Amino acid sequence: MRSKGFDGMACSIASVLGAIGDRWGALILRDVLLGLRRYDDLRHSTGITNATLSDRLKALEQNELIERRQYQSRPDRYEYVLTSQGTDTALVLMALAQVGDKWDLGDLGGPPLRFINANTGNGVKLALLDEATGERVVLRDVRVEEGPAADELTRWRLAKRAEHVETR
Amino acid sequence: MRSKGFDGMACSIASVLGAIGDRWGALILRDVLLGLRRYDDLRHSTGITNATLSDRLKALEQNELIERRQYQSRPDRYEYVLTSQGTDTALVLMALAQVGDKWDLGDLGGPPLRFINANTGNGVKLALLDEATGERVVLRDVRVEEGPAADELTRWRLAKRAEHVETR
Repeated sequence: MRSKGFDGMACSIASVLGAIGDRWGALILRDVLLGLRRYDDLRHSTGITNATLSDRLKALEQNELIERRQYQSRPDRYEYVLTSQGTDTALVLMALAQVGDKWDLGDLGGPPLRFINANTGNGVKLALLDEATGERVVLRDVRVEEGPAADELTRWRLAKRAEHVETR
Repeated sequence: MRSKGFDGMACSIASVLGAIGDRWGALILRDVLLGLRRYDDLRHSTGITNATLSDRLKALEQNELIERRQYQSRPDRYEYVLTSQGTDTALVLMALAQVGDKWDLGDLGGPPLRFINANTGNGVKLALLDEATGERVVLRDVRVEEGPAADELTRWRLAKRAEHVETR
């Protein structure tokens, strides 16, 4: 795994974007998360060309989001599964799905996929929670503050923001 | 706004990825969401070249995630703000930040940014909730099912997955 976010920025967002790579990387993760494992299935599902698919699979493996493992010998055959870090990206993919369902850009009139709580059969949604009280928080009540690992550029961004707030 | 997800896939994830464009697009959204508005500030914050920054700003505007508005005349000056659809992407960016903070790839020993509930001062986290009961759901209890807008390819993916589950 790369030890720094891309371009060495102290930004967790940039780190994860760097590990996923691009939208092809994200769509491959979506499919592996859904349970597709074989190269040919990923190819069919995503419509990515062979060159790009091989390249992105290698990158995702190098970035430790997926793992290649042998499921058959003579002839040797491999499949792809998520690492535990790869599984973490489910949060990002579910956020993308939730926003996309809200926008309904394709005029689909409903979600292509539904996320269900296996224990109750009810739908599952991502929401913002207060870590101490467990209460739901709406986005406009979320304030962004400097964290312990903020670097100079991060502090500069937050200061710039404050400047805009003052001048408006 | 493009009326279809990229490549016309019935996939909400692909739609949003298409609208954001690439990781530069995501970093610009991060900065505008943080409160940066001016071209020069975005340039300083992201380190993106002028050509790429102009291009991505135009794309984000075309995809209706940001809006350019005049804040000064003679000389005319413009700034960028989020549309309501752009604001929706906060969910994706917070998911990216949360995963990145968990990975701590840069060995930062803590998050560069903290998300705070303005009403309580406590931290805010994204979590999966059961839509009917409001209870928290862990990822391994989330089941993905066909939604009302599933197309043939989506159904094929889900069937493939079932196949793997059976054969293991």
